[in-house]
Amino acid sequence: MSELRQNIATKEWVIIATERAKRPGVYAEADHRPTTQDLSPHEAACPFCPGNEELDLETERMPADDPAWQVRSVYNRYPALGNEAALARTFDGVQRWISGVGYHEVVVEHPLHNTTPALMPVTSLGTVLEMFYNRGWSIQNDPRIEQIIFFKNHGEQAGASIDHPHSQIVGLPVVPNIIRQRTEESRRYFDDTGNCVYCVMLNDELNRKERIITTSQYFAAFALYAAPSPFNIWIIPRRHSVSFLYTDKEERADLAAILRDILRRLFFGLHDPAYNFVIQSSPVKELNSDYLHWYLTVNPRLSRTAGFELGSGMSINPALPEECAEYLRNIKI
Amino acid sequence: MSELRQNIATKEWVIIATERAKRPGVYAEADHRPTTQDLSPHEAACPFCPGNEELDLETERMPADDPAWQVRSVYNRYPALGNEAALARTFDGVQRWISGVGYHEVVVEHPLHNTTPALMPVTSLGTVLEMFYNRGWSIQNDPRIEQIIFFKNHGEQAGASIDHPHSQIVGLPVVPNIIRQRTEESRRYFDDTGNCVYCVMLNDELNRKERIITTSQYFAAFALYAAPSPFNIWIIPRRHSVSFLYTDKEERADLAAILRDILRRLFFGLHDPAYNFVIQSSPVKELNSDYLHWYLTVNPRLSRTAGFELGSGMSINPALPEECAEYLRNIKI
Repeated sequence: MSELRQNIATKEWVIIATERAKRPGVYAEADHRPTTQDLSPHEAACPFCPGNEELDLETERMPADDPAWQVRSVYNRYPALGNEAALARTFDGVQRWISGVGYHEVVVEHPLHNTTPALMPVTSLGTVLEMFYNRGWSIQNDPRIEQIIFFKNHGEQAGASIDHPHSQIVGLPVVPNIIRQRTEESRRYFDDTGNCVYCVMLNDELNRKERIITTSQYFAAFALYAAPSPFNIWIIPRRHSVSFLYTDKEERADLAAILRDILRRLFFGLHDPAYNFVIQSSPVKELNSDYLHWYLTVNPRLSRTAGFELGSGMSINPALPEECAEYLRNIKI
Repeated sequence: MSELRQNIATKEWVIIATERAKRPGVYAEADHRPTTQDLSPHEAACPFCPGNEELDLETERMPADDPAWQVRSVYNRYPALGNEAALARTFDGVQRWISGVGYHEVVVEHPLHNTTPALMPVTSLGTVLEMFYNRGWSIQNDPRIEQIIFFKNHGEQAGASIDHPHSQIVGLPVVPNIIRQRTEESRRYFDDTGNCVYCVMLNDELNRKERIITTSQYFAAFALYAAPSPFNIWIIPRRHSVSFLYTDKEERADLAAILRDILRRLFFGLHDPAYNFVIQSSPVKELNSDYLHWYLTVNPRLSRTAGFELGSGMSINPALPEECAEYLRNIKI
């Protein structure tokens, strides 16, 4: 029989549809794989390849001033938000409007066109996280910004329109509604129990072990109990901390290693699936709370959302999280 | 410049990204169209075609007992939820679990394999809504059910796995978190103002006219001010009412006509795009409230969700709702 499971931190219900259950290995044969391994190392028309740098858009490179850069951050050529205009707000009783003030940067993760974080040296992914950290602080220091979203789209199914490995940083002038809701839920939990609900979830997963995929000195990676989709994974710091921007260099190097570990298990275990990862940090102006805890989600895009998900906000997941965790634990990386 | 807009009913922000704006007509040339018009009228292997009826799964047909049925409702062969087991709940302090009790029915909308609501006679779509009504009341009368979702997936991009025209009804033993949140928002608005926020939005759209696509005796259809995606449309009853299940027959016939009108504008204006529609009714046990108001959303699937949407719950919409409304107003149906 199917079951409903609730994430106690976000209060989101999912249906784990065992009647439709597929064995995890089935997902290795799905269609629409990205084509990382079919690409050339350099593409003349790619704006992110060395030699084609759009220097007017560049905000930072690593190493600084080095023509042989490893990672670059650039303004998005077609930004969703821009940082030049003034922040304006209007509300006429029905329509609430804010000018499109914010940041939208693209982090070019590597000079090679045909690589991806799963295949890069761990130090390259570490440099990407150092760039997230530097650019994140720069954006956070703008008082108009309320929330920063760090994310990667890998593969067309996950929304990537350029093959060259890259991720994105968006700085928003509002706190998104779902982040407000989660903040309120975790505040209520803290007021009731005196504990961070994310710390409680993490410790519970470490005790049960059945959904743990791998752990490192500073992080744990597990398949979510109430996973909305197959192979939905959380990587969460063991230390209670509200934001990725409060990590130190040693923690970021450790995060690069465990993130790469997870991405390699997906790459080799599921044949380079499309995926998104997102760093879920707290709102920029709630950086001292006892009850918020940052984490990173990895979402392989192996199923489609349909009308049910749009209407209910719930998901029907045809894969058991415990089986997905076991499958990934056994992948040789 | 881009702008942020908030839906005052749901409190959801969207980014209307005018820097990336596309003219509405561009969407008529998008890839991955459904193939309604390439199908045969009858398919030997289709479980929904006449002659292949899985009678053990049937819950109701219209006309009743007629071999020449017009609409049938059947249990989903691979249901996400089932109604035979007892409702059980557990909570061990971290994991909250409910047995998969509920309903998952499929409404076969028409005997013809190669039609779709945009192309059916309006009386056929009316019969589909009569079936929603009948099955909805039957499900609502089960005291274990807290929420009913009526929805349609049209085209593979929208999650449809069978071409034969069909829609679905899911009865859930929980109120989904986003519906709880919206209920709380509209209750707060009512307590502050004495008004239903949905009635306020509707009247505002009728006054402004710029996003209205069409109206009928009992309904109005408009492009949403804070539309999360191109051509996102609400059809909302002019009469304050909490649920589709409180409509009368005349209202349902009128809804069939305006829904078909909108689906025809999409079919002819955007070349049969994939879409979902969803009836957003109130929780089953909140049927007497002053502040809830049902509506129907139509969501053409013309853009992909990516990491930004997963991380923020916000959307980046590259189409101006006012231009989408104007485009659809001008489509000859």
